[in-house]
Amino acid sequence: MSASAATPALVALDWGTTSLRAYLLAADGVALDTRASSAGIMKLPAGGFDQAFEETCGAWLDAHANLPVIAAGMVGSAQGWVEAPYVETPANADALVAGIVQVKTARGLAVHVVPGVLERGVLPNVMRGEETQIFGALASEPSLGAAGGALIGLPGTHAKWAFVADERIERFYTFMTGETFSALRDHTILGRTMHPAPTHDEQAFLRGVDTARDAGHPGVLATIFSTRTLGLTGQLSAEQQSDYLSGLLIGHELRGLSEVLARENATLAGKTLRLIGNDALCDHYRAALERFGCHDAATVAHATEQGLYGIAALAGLVAAKRAA
Amino acid sequence: MSASAATPALVALDWGTTSLRAYLLAADGVALDTRASSAGIMKLPAGGFDQAFEETCGAWLDAHANLPVIAAGMVGSAQGWVEAPYVETPANADALVAGIVQVKTARGLAVHVVPGVLERGVLPNVMRGEETQIFGALASEPSLGAAGGALIGLPGTHAKWAFVADERIERFYTFMTGETFSALRDHTILGRTMHPAPTHDEQAFLRGVDTARDAGHPGVLATIFSTRTLGLTGQLSAEQQSDYLSGLLIGHELRGLSEVLARENATLAGKTLRLIGNDALCDHYRAALERFGCHDAATVAHATEQGLYGIAALAGLVAAKRAA
Repeated sequence: MSASAATPALVALDWGTTSLRAYLLAADGVALDTRASSAGIMKLPAGGFDQAFEETCGAWLDAHANLPVIAAGMVGSAQGWVEAPYVETPANADALVAGIVQVKTARGLAVHVVPGVLERGVLPNVMRGEETQIFGALASEPSLGAAGGALIGLPGTHAKWAFVADERIERFYTFMTGETFSALRDHTILGRTMHPAPTHDEQAFLRGVDTARDAGHPGVLATIFSTRTLGLTGQLSAEQQSDYLSGLLIGHELRGLSEVLARENATLAGKTLRLIGNDALCDHYRAALERFGCHDAATVAHATEQGLYGIAALAGLVAAKRAA
Repeated sequence: MSASAATPALVALDWGTTSLRAYLLAADGVALDTRASSAGIMKLPAGGFDQAFEETCGAWLDAHANLPVIAAGMVGSAQGWVEAPYVETPANADALVAGIVQVKTARGLAVHVVPGVLERGVLPNVMRGEETQIFGALASEPSLGAAGGALIGLPGTHAKWAFVADERIERFYTFMTGETFSALRDHTILGRTMHPAPTHDEQAFLRGVDTARDAGHPGVLATIFSTRTLGLTGQLSAEQQSDYLSGLLIGHELRGLSEVLARENATLAGKTLRLIGNDALCDHYRAALERFGCHDAATVAHATEQGLYGIAALAGLVAAKRAA
């Protein structure tokens, strides 16, 4: 690494509802340092943005004054530091750059807040933060943004699946899979017969995926009850029930996506797929996707930093990275 | 009413997880008195069954010693007063009578506990209490039990849909619609933008039903997010969001049922349908069923008492009711 590459060039923030992750990036986009904080936007007192920013990034800025700062995520929502109104699908990186809104910190620096993306329609969809990760994936693997397109999955509390083509986010879906799982486990009868499992039970998980995938049942509101009845009939142990329910819900998510594709005469197996997110969760999705015939759904590493860096470069905040 | 008809002949209990409802029935099956208590089986201290029974029915038994007592519901579960093991589908009323288990009260009376019904399979199903209501519906409208069959819906926390024919419960499904609605409203982001509505908003409810019914979406895990995004985009007020979500979930339940029927070349509109349950909730289901082409889904009144009385009569606990 050259000396200039190791010089800090950008402070990049992934600032969501429940956490703040900060990156000190070099001129080549590589992270020199990172900080993780629980100062998500829903956890801050009124006016708490400046203090959380200082606590997380102050030392970097003391050492390297006047670094440009970019941020993505719920920090740009109506409940955030400053509202960066949604840009609409189809959205490319230029549209995101054009939608950046600045907020001045107590220190006098401008934080450049990336807007989220809105898809209008009968079932509107919104994302904040994922758009930046998606462009990070396109930066690290440019063929994903080609005309043929790709399907990028971002598992989590609110899982997103985005159709990208021609360097744009064409459209996307939101599945409340993670949050529904937690609500069912912690606040319905299904949790009462569950015992915590020491490790992920792959067999129980895939049984759930297969049950959701296979035809014959009347939908997720009905299949979830089998978490309990398979226990009552001695076919699922208390330790297996949580992974079975997780597999069921992820299976229903993928089945729903399959049905949408089928209406376009496409299949999950025929698509170029990539995953972005927590490694363990992406592993579970990859195992579930195998049951739908997808064997090449790699996880994109460093999508968040890459996305923040790429948008900052396009906005002229840092010099664009050159090919090695 | 004749004098003998007005003489108490049976104490009948509908004893579930969260409540106990007791009926003092005359020889013609008509309720002379009723008591409702919050002494559901999950709310009782250890050994609390006898005390709850005495508090609810003691005065009746003091006045009329040696009345027969019959009970249905979760009181017969493994967590109940005595376990009455499930009988399996297809199940007729004789099978329920054969499965009755008795428990002796402190007063020395025998309580006759009706078993629940189990359907084995990849997705097992269980019911306790609903089987008795279903036979109550068949008693009040015998054509429902004919060879052609009927579909009986019991909306609620765990909605049941039972296929009945030849005087039997052939098979059934459980939809966790009510409990999922509560968990989503009270324990996910969807509740955060909801305001309580002064009255049921039929328009918002039916919008949810229609959204779930119409093709094009990738399933309930995705459509529920529109409760939030329709709010964000100004298409659904905070007061409408709860009824919209309720309509969505009930719509997905009915769509799931439709899909099962479609695989048998049947339709909801072509079935004889009846509803059993809370009047307001049955009204909502009836409005939702209209959107699926069903215009004759009457609510069956007094199904619980009728069912308890009919099973008691078949078991020889009371003289069988004669046609007037």
